[in-house]
Amino acid sequence: MFTPQPIGFVSSPFTDGNAIPKGLGAKHPEEGALKILPAFEEGLTDIEGYSHLIVLWVFDRSEGFDLMVTPPTDSKPHGLFTTRSPRRPNPIALTIVELLNREGGTLRVRGIDMLDGTLILDIKPYLSNIPEEKLRRGWLGEVEGKR
Amino acid sequence: MFTPQPIGFVSSPFTDGNAIPKGLGAKHPEEGALKILPAFEEGLTDIEGYSHLIVLWVFDRSEGFDLMVTPPTDSKPHGLFTTRSPRRPNPIALTIVELLNREGGTLRVRGIDMLDGTLILDIKPYLSNIPEEKLRRGWLGEVEGKR
Repeated sequence: MFTPQPIGFVSSPFTDGNAIPKGLGAKHPEEGALKILPAFEEGLTDIEGYSHLIVLWVFDRSEGFDLMVTPPTDSKPHGLFTTRSPRRPNPIALTIVELLNREGGTLRVRGIDMLDGTLILDIKPYLSNIPEEKLRRGWLGEVEGKR
Repeated sequence: MFTPQPIGFVSSPFTDGNAIPKGLGAKHPEEGALKILPAFEEGLTDIEGYSHLIVLWVFDRSEGFDLMVTPPTDSKPHGLFTTRSPRRPNPIALTIVELLNREGGTLRVRGIDMLDGTLILDIKPYLSNIPEEKLRRGWLGEVEGKR
């Protein structure tokens, strides 16, 4: 196994987890920045050509986990791995953000759902979608269909 | 920071990294299994309702990294974070797989691009696409356009 190390941190308007929209139909229009440490800045070369990025980050204010979780979207418990709960065996989060611009090691992005100061583990290019007609979304799709 | 721990491992037809299709237009039709450890199996409850899963796993046979990378798809170097190179500061990989069925802790899936025995860190539901008309894919899109 490896030892996780931050490549940067998030500059976010959110300082309180309760203020971050969650659950059914939650939108994340907020803008913020991914501040990449100088030691890793060269790795951003050519990133301006991408519209969307996958950000892997740490749920650094979560502890422990339960295997059954009742998410904000539903009244019934579901398996942890069918949810985006922050309490996981490996507290790694994933957010797709829209890249607005870059200045040196700072990526200005839209779609922030992280707390201010959150540690970033990795950035990857978002390359392709799943064909819409092939996508099924389990209990979440069912709950949405009911509303 | 946290200490990564495997929640399971991949059963894959690939035992040699060179046999895994890479680069432009690479397809991954191969089937395999995600074998989740008994201690985490309950967390898979209700996962059958999802067609696609996000699998986070470890590039456990990679070491070190370079910030500029010449990928198999192009002859020019690009920033590491615009590529899917396995050599990264945090060697975490992400694959979207199609869920075929589940038997206990074993998820049979299509879209395997991992080596046999690869350690799994997390499974998350795949929930939504980026609108196709908003997606730009940087140097990769340019190279594809040339062919």
